[in-house]
Amino acid sequence: MEPEMNVLLVHVKKNRLPDHIVKALFPQFLTVITEPGHLQEYGPGVDVRLVEDVQDLECLRAEVLEVLRQRRIDRIFMPFELGQAQAAFVREYFGIPGIGFTAANALTNKYVMKLRLREAGLPQAPFALAAGVDRIEAAGDEVGWPVVVKPAVGGGSLDVFTFDSAAEARAFAASRDADPIRKLTCPLVVESFVDIRTELHCDGVVDGGEVRFAKASEYFVPVLGHGEQFGSRILPDGDPVAAEILDLHRRAVAATGLESGVTHMEFFQTEDGLLASEIACRPAGGGIPHAVKLQTGVDIWAACLDTALGRAPKTAETETGAGTVAHWYLTVPPGRIVKLTDADQLRQIDGVIDVVANFKVGDSVPTRQNSATAAMLVFARADSLAEVERLHKEIYGAYRVEVSSE
Amino acid sequence: MEPEMNVLLVHVKKNRLPDHIVKALFPQFLTVITEPGHLQEYGPGVDVRLVEDVQDLECLRAEVLEVLRQRRIDRIFMPFELGQAQAAFVREYFGIPGIGFTAANALTNKYVMKLRLREAGLPQAPFALAAGVDRIEAAGDEVGWPVVVKPAVGGGSLDVFTFDSAAEARAFAASRDADPIRKLTCPLVVESFVDIRTELHCDGVVDGGEVRFAKASEYFVPVLGHGEQFGSRILPDGDPVAAEILDLHRRAVAATGLESGVTHMEFFQTEDGLLASEIACRPAGGGIPHAVKLQTGVDIWAACLDTALGRAPKTAETETGAGTVAHWYLTVPPGRIVKLTDADQLRQIDGVIDVVANFKVGDSVPTRQNSATAAMLVFARADSLAEVERLHKEIYGAYRVEVSSE
Repeated sequence: MEPEMNVLLVHVKKNRLPDHIVKALFPQFLTVITEPGHLQEYGPGVDVRLVEDVQDLECLRAEVLEVLRQRRIDRIFMPFELGQAQAAFVREYFGIPGIGFTAANALTNKYVMKLRLREAGLPQAPFALAAGVDRIEAAGDEVGWPVVVKPAVGGGSLDVFTFDSAAEARAFAASRDADPIRKLTCPLVVESFVDIRTELHCDGVVDGGEVRFAKASEYFVPVLGHGEQFGSRILPDGDPVAAEILDLHRRAVAATGLESGVTHMEFFQTEDGLLASEIACRPAGGGIPHAVKLQTGVDIWAACLDTALGRAPKTAETETGAGTVAHWYLTVPPGRIVKLTDADQLRQIDGVIDVVANFKVGDSVPTRQNSATAAMLVFARADSLAEVERLHKEIYGAYRVEVSSE
Repeated sequence: MEPEMNVLLVHVKKNRLPDHIVKALFPQFLTVITEPGHLQEYGPGVDVRLVEDVQDLECLRAEVLEVLRQRRIDRIFMPFELGQAQAAFVREYFGIPGIGFTAANALTNKYVMKLRLREAGLPQAPFALAAGVDRIEAAGDEVGWPVVVKPAVGGGSLDVFTFDSAAEARAFAASRDADPIRKLTCPLVVESFVDIRTELHCDGVVDGGEVRFAKASEYFVPVLGHGEQFGSRILPDGDPVAAEILDLHRRAVAATGLESGVTHMEFFQTEDGLLASEIACRPAGGGIPHAVKLQTGVDIWAACLDTALGRAPKTAETETGAGTVAHWYLTVPPGRIVKLTDADQLRQIDGVIDVVANFKVGDSVPTRQNSATAAMLVFARADSLAEVERLHKEIYGAYRVEVSSE
């Protein structure tokens, strides 16, 4: 069979695709640019090329030029946050259709993102740029203490710092603790700390510049530094907060200029109302895409691939039962797993519709986890908050994990 | 006096600003990023920083981050073609207003430019991308021989090759003559060769996404490999070709997405009508900006600075006399100039309104010249083609230059 098109997949070494997306890539001729030590494995017939750093623009551009000396590239698939702006740059540079640099930058560079959302009038915490660790103090004075500081570029909840005062930021800047931040080659974003009641997220599919599908969900607890119990619940369509979230999401998509792709956006519910936090053009991590699929039949990962390949995404919702889908992260401390609840035991809890196991007994759990790391994910359908509460208790009541230090 | 704003000027080492633009930069606090061996000199109070290669994105980005650790950057001024897309990338990355990457790329990367002009329906010679010297043959087969080949990125008329046939391109690719092309880190654009009757240009000022000012001109002879006699004449506003040029220019500006800046666009007049060639977002080289200023009072260089700094450009035309302004390049072979016509002698020719001397007796003229290199530029006002002919003969009749090999 003649390949439908030549697709270039770009990702940093740590990123891995869901299995069904790897399979869906194969009707195309696949070229991959990634880094030495990449976790994703590819079968025969895939041209896998390694570069030192996918996020180095010149490095990536030079390798893509080498690929183009061998074959045409019709589309670039880049469903992860790290390197997404670089892949978009390469698209534009070589005239390859798909998400361009301006949108990808606004959807990965938190400072530029916040500028665009502010211009569009979305409610946000006050923020400022700090070009280096020595500039946090001035930025904090501008936005008001306490502050949350994070690199402008980089996925996930790692490398996030909070400072209560100018003195604390100054002491940090003078200390060795700041060395990793000093080495960063991107600026920092300094945001005024807001008192968060709950955190919410919205996951969508955009095509032709319009939001074709979106679901609002509420996390059980705030994401940053969450404890052992974590997860989120899709809000019913009639929920007034969901309606507000969907409106903010639609405006954020317009503000970033995203024409086609999938989104994951986060929100803070505060005493003064909803605030937009961040928006990304990639599927959410953890169990969110699976929860959305169970609830609506819409496969956000498939939509991500379809939009990247210039195909219309499938966004029609199928009727899949009463209530909405919630999912729970069964977290695990670092070490080697010696005991773990059996997935089948969790499946017997009333309302549970699926369990996904990421780790098994004998696996080694890394020290550096992100907010989506879990030994298992439990998905259940619930038609009330009381039902969510009941499931929450039963699931965590049944969960047992033991690790040994290695 | 408090500086109005902090301006970062970026340019490769060979580029030089007109003196009045250097002066106009000084009310701002000026930071310059350029390369070792830069020709432009700066006075005290300017923070001049050298990087190995302004066109290396990572290199430029890292240096801008260093600047931001010292001070805010309000605007980036980048009025030259080489490095313009890189400067635009840096603007977007750090959230600095001004020309963004998508527009700058479409206005400097000839392949992407031609894609955008084609999408907008502008008439052009057939073209294709060749990612390397070995791909010229396939691209030529696609667009039709003979072909003109040039690097997709890079200013001026240097490094342009023509091939009559696939065999000739193949022989070139196998030869040592192709070594400089092999070393290029950008792709090539392969265009079908068109039989050019005359070449034309259009020079404009764009603000708020609209063309605020534009003048169409006709070169005396085609630009590429022009001989000793070269120059151009601004077309009268009522000229039908001028009207067509102005319309194509307006559509090209829209196609590239340029919101604010100045343009220089080139056209081919062929047996089958006008073809768009290339459009740049910088002032033209040689005597064109001065000719436009003499004719209309509009200073394209000042408009370039104004738009870069977010100020409204001055585009109102002043009445400056009858006829239109033409200008002639008094070219000079490489070597040391031992004899050169006196500018005052040229000023006495009837109709001549200005003479600009770039070289004087004793100066050394480089071997590698571009299409705008000239010992002197002569500007005259003429109200008919016959008058242009008469001036042409008198000017070149009076011009004498002698060089000695060094």
